[in-house]
Amino acid sequence: MIENSYYSQDVHGPYELHDIGNLDLEEGGTIRACNLAYATFGKLNAAKDNAILIPTWYSGTSKIMEQVYIGPGRALDPDKYFIIVVNQIGSGLSTSPHNTSPPAGMGNFPRVRIGDDVRAQHKLVTEKFDLKSLALVVGGSMGAQQTYEWAVRYPDMVKRAAPIAGTARNTIHDSLFTETLVNAITSDPGFNKGFYASSADVREGLLRHAKMWAVMGWSTEFFQQDRHKALGFSSMDDFIMNFMNGYFSVMDPNDLLCMAWKWQHGDVSRHTGGDLRAALGRIKAKTFVMPMSSDMFFPPSDCQAEWRLIPDAEFRPIQTIDGHLALFGADPNAIGQLDKHLRELLASEV
Amino acid sequence: MIENSYYSQDVHGPYELHDIGNLDLEEGGTIRACNLAYATFGKLNAAKDNAILIPTWYSGTSKIMEQVYIGPGRALDPDKYFIIVVNQIGSGLSTSPHNTSPPAGMGNFPRVRIGDDVRAQHKLVTEKFDLKSLALVVGGSMGAQQTYEWAVRYPDMVKRAAPIAGTARNTIHDSLFTETLVNAITSDPGFNKGFYASSADVREGLLRHAKMWAVMGWSTEFFQQDRHKALGFSSMDDFIMNFMNGYFSVMDPNDLLCMAWKWQHGDVSRHTGGDLRAALGRIKAKTFVMPMSSDMFFPPSDCQAEWRLIPDAEFRPIQTIDGHLALFGADPNAIGQLDKHLRELLASEV
Repeated sequence: MIENSYYSQDVHGPYELHDIGNLDLEEGGTIRACNLAYATFGKLNAAKDNAILIPTWYSGTSKIMEQVYIGPGRALDPDKYFIIVVNQIGSGLSTSPHNTSPPAGMGNFPRVRIGDDVRAQHKLVTEKFDLKSLALVVGGSMGAQQTYEWAVRYPDMVKRAAPIAGTARNTIHDSLFTETLVNAITSDPGFNKGFYASSADVREGLLRHAKMWAVMGWSTEFFQQDRHKALGFSSMDDFIMNFMNGYFSVMDPNDLLCMAWKWQHGDVSRHTGGDLRAALGRIKAKTFVMPMSSDMFFPPSDCQAEWRLIPDAEFRPIQTIDGHLALFGADPNAIGQLDKHLRELLASEV
Repeated sequence: MIENSYYSQDVHGPYELHDIGNLDLEEGGTIRACNLAYATFGKLNAAKDNAILIPTWYSGTSKIMEQVYIGPGRALDPDKYFIIVVNQIGSGLSTSPHNTSPPAGMGNFPRVRIGDDVRAQHKLVTEKFDLKSLALVVGGSMGAQQTYEWAVRYPDMVKRAAPIAGTARNTIHDSLFTETLVNAITSDPGFNKGFYASSADVREGLLRHAKMWAVMGWSTEFFQQDRHKALGFSSMDDFIMNFMNGYFSVMDPNDLLCMAWKWQHGDVSRHTGGDLRAALGRIKAKTFVMPMSSDMFFPPSDCQAEWRLIPDAEFRPIQTIDGHLALFGADPNAIGQLDKHLRELLASEV
C-alpha cells in the first residue's frame, strides 16, 4: 500500500465505491473486498432500459470519459441516458496494487483478466442498479476490450456495443508492444520487483514508458503536422516531458502493470477454446467497430478482421491523424465523428 | 577494444580495409587512422563513369547488400557496374567503438555524424579509386541518409540518387523512436556506461532493443498475415528470440549506439542553416525517393514531404507489408519493384 494523491476525489471525483465482495480471478488468486469506483450521469428510467456502461482504458479514469464523451446534446447524453462509467481494476481508483493492503498489494497483486473486470462490473450493474439490460456498452482501447468481453459473455444483456480503437483478441504485434511497455518499467532497478517506496523511485522507467507511448500512441502524421505544437507544446522535448511524462509519471507503476498485463492478454476466444469466430458469433448486440484510422497498434486492418466475424456489425473507422490517442479528444473532428456514429447506433432498433 | 567474432571476414567477408587517415569529426573529436571496410563487385571502366556507391544501414554490413541487392541480371549488375559497398563508421567492420584501442574506444568513442561518414567515403572513392563521379548512390534507411548527404554535399559528383526507406532530415518522431532504442541498451546496468566485458553483459538491454525493433520494424499487417511464420518461425516468441534477438544479440552495444546517434541526428539542412528546402534544392542527381509503403518510422508521407523539395525527383513508393525491414529482402515482390525502379533510374540520361 502506498500513498498516491493522484488517485483521489480531488483529481478524479466525484466517484462512488461499490464493494462487490471477494473476486475469484481467472488466473487463480482472489481480490478480497474488491471495490469498483464508478461515476454516474443522468437518471435510470422506470423501465430500466436506458443504461449505458463505459469501462475505462489503460491509465484513464471515469474523469476523462466524463470530460470528453459525456454531456447534454452529446451522443452520450445524461438527459436521456443513465450512464455508468466504471473504473477498471488496477486503474488506481478501483481496487489496485497500490491501494491494496499487505500482503496482497504492490508487487504481490494477483493477475487480473479482462473477464474478471467484466464479471465484477456485471455484479455492480445487477446488484447495485438491478439492471437487466444495457442499452450500450462503449469504451476505447482497453475499454473496447471490455466492451467486446461484455458482448460475448453477456450477449442477451448488451443491446448495443461500440468498441473504439481496440480489439476482441489482442494481436501478437500489440502484445509485443505491451511487453516493451512493461519492460520499460520493470527494468528500472528502482522498481524493485514492485516494492518501491514511491513512483519517483521508478522515475526513469516511467519516462521510458512515456516515450514509447509517444512513439506508438500518436502517429507520424501527427508530428509531421506539428500537432504537438498546436496542443501548446513548444518542442518534442517539451511535449515528452510536460505532456507524456507529466501524464504518466504521477501514476503508480504496479497499477499500470496490472492494466498492461490485462491489455496484453485480452482475448474473448477464451470462451470458445480459442475459436475467435465462434466467440464473436455469440454477439447479439448491434455493434459498431470504430478504429482510429492512424492507430499504430490497434490499426483499422486488425479491427476490420474482427468486424467480419461479428453478426450484423458495422465498420465505422474514425478519420484522424491523432492515432490511438485521438481517444484523448484533442481532435474535435474525430470526436464529432464518434458522436455521430454513437448517435446512430443508439437510435438503431434492437 | 573487445573481441567479437561476429565482425569478421568469416561472417561478412570478403571485404577490404582502407585507412583514410585521421578523420576530424563535426561534433569535435578525431578518429585516428579511420578505416573503412568496403567490398567491390564488377570492374571500373576506362571512363570511370560506371561506379555505384552503396552505404550501409543500421546494423547492416556490405554482406547483406551483396546478398539481397547485387547480382548479374539485377539492377545493380556487377557485369555492368563497378559497385562499392562501404560499411559505415560504427558498423563493426569499419572503425567502430568495439575495435578502437583505448582510450578512444568503447564508451569513449566520439560522436559521429552522417556527414563524417560521407566525407570519409569521399576520401575512399577519390583517393583509392580516383573517381570523379558516381553513376548512382543508393542505400536503405541509414544508407538513404548517407545517400541524401552525398547528393547535397557533392552535387556535381552524384549523377543519380536512390534513397530507400529513409529521410534527408530525421523527423522528431523517428528521433524519439531512436532514443527509445538507445535507452533500451543504456538502461541495462550491465552496459556500465559503455565499458562492459562482452555483449553478453548487455543481454537484457539488447533483448529489449530487439523487441522494440520487432514492434516498429515490420508492420501490423506483417504479423496479421503471419509473415513471421512464412519466414519459418513457429510463433512470435520464436521469431523474437531466434530471429530478432538472434540477429542483434551478437552485435556490439557501443557500435549500435554509435550508429543510432548518427541516425537520430541525420540532417542535410545542417549545410544550409536549417533550411531543408535550400539543402535539398542543391541536389543535381536524378533522384528516386523510395519509401516502403508500410514503414512505421520512415513512412511514405515523411519521405513524400522531402521529395517535393528535390528538383526533378520522382516519388516511387514500394508496396509491401514487410514495413521498414522489407529492406531485408524477404518480400521478393518488394525487391522486384526496387530493381525495376533502379533499372529505370540507371537508364535515365543525366
